[in-house]
Amino acid sequence: MSLSDIEIAQQTEMEPIEKIAQKINLESDHLELYGKYKAKIDFETLEKSQEGSTGKLILVTAINPTPAGEGKSTVTIGLADALSRLGKSTMIALREPSLGPTMGIKGGAAGGGYAQVVPMEDINLHFTGDMHAITAANNALSALIDNHIFQGNELLIDSRRVIWKRVVDLNDRALRHVTIGLGGPLQGVPREDGFDITVASEIMAILCLATSLKDLKKRLSKIVVGYTYQRQPVTVKDLKVEGALTLLLKDAIKPNLVQTLEHTPALVHGGPFANIAHGCNSVLATRTALHLADYTVTEAGFGADLGAEKFLDIKVPQLKKAPDVVVVVATIRALKMHGGVPKSNLASENVEAVKIGFSNLQKHIENMQSYGLPVVVAINEFVSDTVAEVQMVKEKCLALGVEAALTSVWEKGSEGGVALAEAVLAEIDHTQVFSPLYDTDNETIETKVTKIVQKIYGGKGVAFSKKALTQMKNFEENGWGNLPICMAKTQYSLSDDPSLLGRPSDFIVTIREFVPKLGAGFIVALTGDVMTMPGLPKQPAALNMDVAEDGTVSGLF
Amino acid sequence: MSLSDIEIAQQTEMEPIEKIAQKINLESDHLELYGKYKAKIDFETLEKSQEGSTGKLILVTAINPTPAGEGKSTVTIGLADALSRLGKSTMIALREPSLGPTMGIKGGAAGGGYAQVVPMEDINLHFTGDMHAITAANNALSALIDNHIFQGNELLIDSRRVIWKRVVDLNDRALRHVTIGLGGPLQGVPREDGFDITVASEIMAILCLATSLKDLKKRLSKIVVGYTYQRQPVTVKDLKVEGALTLLLKDAIKPNLVQTLEHTPALVHGGPFANIAHGCNSVLATRTALHLADYTVTEAGFGADLGAEKFLDIKVPQLKKAPDVVVVVATIRALKMHGGVPKSNLASENVEAVKIGFSNLQKHIENMQSYGLPVVVAINEFVSDTVAEVQMVKEKCLALGVEAALTSVWEKGSEGGVALAEAVLAEIDHTQVFSPLYDTDNETIETKVTKIVQKIYGGKGVAFSKKALTQMKNFEENGWGNLPICMAKTQYSLSDDPSLLGRPSDFIVTIREFVPKLGAGFIVALTGDVMTMPGLPKQPAALNMDVAEDGTVSGLF
Repeated sequence: MSLSDIEIAQQTEMEPIEKIAQKINLESDHLELYGKYKAKIDFETLEKSQEGSTGKLILVTAINPTPAGEGKSTVTIGLADALSRLGKSTMIALREPSLGPTMGIKGGAAGGGYAQVVPMEDINLHFTGDMHAITAANNALSALIDNHIFQGNELLIDSRRVIWKRVVDLNDRALRHVTIGLGGPLQGVPREDGFDITVASEIMAILCLATSLKDLKKRLSKIVVGYTYQRQPVTVKDLKVEGALTLLLKDAIKPNLVQTLEHTPALVHGGPFANIAHGCNSVLATRTALHLADYTVTEAGFGADLGAEKFLDIKVPQLKKAPDVVVVVATIRALKMHGGVPKSNLASENVEAVKIGFSNLQKHIENMQSYGLPVVVAINEFVSDTVAEVQMVKEKCLALGVEAALTSVWEKGSEGGVALAEAVLAEIDHTQVFSPLYDTDNETIETKVTKIVQKIYGGKGVAFSKKALTQMKNFEENGWGNLPICMAKTQYSLSDDPSLLGRPSDFIVTIREFVPKLGAGFIVALTGDVMTMPGLPKQPAALNMDVAEDGTVSGLF
Repeated sequence: MSLSDIEIAQQTEMEPIEKIAQKINLESDHLELYGKYKAKIDFETLEKSQEGSTGKLILVTAINPTPAGEGKSTVTIGLADALSRLGKSTMIALREPSLGPTMGIKGGAAGGGYAQVVPMEDINLHFTGDMHAITAANNALSALIDNHIFQGNELLIDSRRVIWKRVVDLNDRALRHVTIGLGGPLQGVPREDGFDITVASEIMAILCLATSLKDLKKRLSKIVVGYTYQRQPVTVKDLKVEGALTLLLKDAIKPNLVQTLEHTPALVHGGPFANIAHGCNSVLATRTALHLADYTVTEAGFGADLGAEKFLDIKVPQLKKAPDVVVVVATIRALKMHGGVPKSNLASENVEAVKIGFSNLQKHIENMQSYGLPVVVAINEFVSDTVAEVQMVKEKCLALGVEAALTSVWEKGSEGGVALAEAVLAEIDHTQVFSPLYDTDNETIETKVTKIVQKIYGGKGVAFSKKALTQMKNFEENGWGNLPICMAKTQYSLSDDPSLLGRPSDFIVTIREFVPKLGAGFIVALTGDVMTMPGLPKQPAALNMDVAEDGTVSGLF
């Protein structure tokens, strides 16, 4: 019987975090310890990392996810361990997980098998408190807004047009739609409201894009919380609480240092949604890793059409550094699903389905190449893969000028990632010129959305709802036209229809509505319904969790 | 111009927390560091502390609070510093503050002036994340309850009779009364609900009364979350989530070690409300302090009628150790208010008012003596106090066989607490037999409530509402009759009428309703309306808060 993730993690002896820091020449003076195996990096180091560096950046992304699973985080961690194994000074920059899914659905967010970041119990639970600080700051702002309205409403905020929602870091369906302020005139002003999960908070996106404490405060001040009766935007600055919110985030902004099972240093910091936000770990963590190590392996959420596109068009301008190589993760099983095979039939060989499903991978490879970036494909091995199936993928990749490397880091750790690491190293010095998809400052919202849909998704065009058309006009008038676009779209398809697998064409993407995220510094474009508060399943993972008298955890994946 | 609390704190150089731990012979192996100046104590030390100890316990309590202020926490900290100054091995066990009041009203909860626990910014903000862990556990339970109802409701929970409320660690008036689960059949089951502030959560009370991780889990399993359609109680155990909740609290249960401005070791851990809960720091922290130091100074919330009574009748049975001496804090100004002087006239000498107001102090002294405990009075000095006023208090104390010591720790630190420390040391070896107010196991709820009202408050008797009478009958039938009583009453008066200062008599206390807190292990008796979710003032303290680029905090008191 194979071991569970938590059993593997518990069997591994961690090194003290000071020793991990030594590997990247970070003295313990610059660490703020959280127990023996976690530390935050101090402001001095963060400031130094702003000076730029010669570190190489490897972005791991994937095909459109399927129920078959791709293992992107696992490959990210395993690749970094393999680079370390080859003697390269390497760091990881990863997102930190949300407590909500942890309590709901089995499945860790800190890698798996023999490619994990540890201590996985802590990382999956409260970690260093970043999520809680964001929750507190988000909800403090909500309390301050409702208190402002209650105490005379000097800013004339229209209580029907408050767009700032409360959050909890839980899957709590019952909080999606609520009415608050009930109970009479002494208890508040009644209005409709709703709760999102913490990772959907704009404050999470802000924390992940901020380049310093000063920049954090500036971004927080720009948040639009709602509108006046005259439809004028009301900001955090109008409420005069950007100082208090920054104060609540002064530790959360510092990246968290942990380690992999093989003791590669890893920064696990920030975790915005990849639909209504940009889905990457913090700019500060990535920048710090680039400063401290020669090679940084990082990851973008969902498939490359969402995660990598946003990494390149939203995060890179803040990071001031484009990836040196992009790794696109795929599995034979997932390619078969993109080729039309149902989940129940994935175990039998089907080279033809792999060939058809490859179209999805091919589109993502072409997209990354269109940014001027070298690409390597990682085929994340499963026992059911056959030689002929793997051969088909390798050949088709070669035809696109891309190497495809088999990886088995889940089963074997770094040893299973050496082929991929070597392929990455072979590509990483081919300097090419990074070419952004659109001109953020000078193109209109409509042009930017259209470029994403046509060039990245491969769609025919965009249909804007009446509301979206009005919003585009208002936003441009407000001076918000020069922001990048953050698409909120299904992750399962290149189109906005989750059932269209492979490489759909001739489709139109409908933009239902825009949401201004002035603090994060992007405009969200909503395609369909976007779930910002997940629910729990009938048998939540919480039912299996336990902790022994000595503090040993069980049932956590 | 005198310095603010935060300025004094920032001017003081803290010692590394390992050095503080050395003072109480605690090796750094037993510390889980949170930065350089905070640490949690490990399970091994907590377990050892269960073996009992010869440490002496000093309980600091006060007269009924007035707007004039008493400075109970400040005296607690200053007394401990003074004992240290006299060469005694001393620790402090204090409650940790809630973020809600911090954002709302100026005024720290970590002492003041030259008697503070530090790092005060951290202690007043996220600290080591205990509050956030409690919030997460509380709200995870809420999400699991609503999910159970949504997913078929096998336990037949009556959604109108869910008594478990959600919490936020904020002052958020608008969340007092809400409706949740709106939006149609896919979004939840609509019901009325409300949010409390985190410190009002039963989980906070449980964390503070639990004697081990095992006991914590047992207590969590007993929480009554609501009732079935047949009016049968539904518990956490029925939902099978006590393991998950314990897991979320596995670090929060460990006491937090910090230091005073004069480097006395302090455990700051847990902070339940003193109205609907028992208002004392955790049993584990107090026990650990008793194990590690010769003298432990601790504090109870509000006046002695609420805080000390609950300390003695609810906490002591879990702690298995009664105080060796009780310090009752009073100020001349507050005694004048109890003597009928309005706040605006407190600056002028008024010996007669002091004499009349002394009746309040006298009742609390007599109450503590009725438990068989030695008493010392601390007169917390203000500049406006006159010699004649102080003399009046000292004489009246002496008539009761009690010494009254002047303290000026806010202004002078430990030096200002030496007289009090000497008075405490003079009393501490007078062993007397602790005599509890009531027989928890064998007396009825009605008898226990009546004893509190008649013997501690000095009232004539108790009026139970019709609902309360029915509940007493049901609770005794459910087997809950053998629990101690936790009175929820105004802190401003010995009676249940906040306007009755001094020592009222001939009053009847009305019990409106009971609330079973099976996990905490007590029955709450509600007198009037109890505020479990505060609101923000028109100019919240948050408006003045800020943080500089290097992380330096300002505007926090």
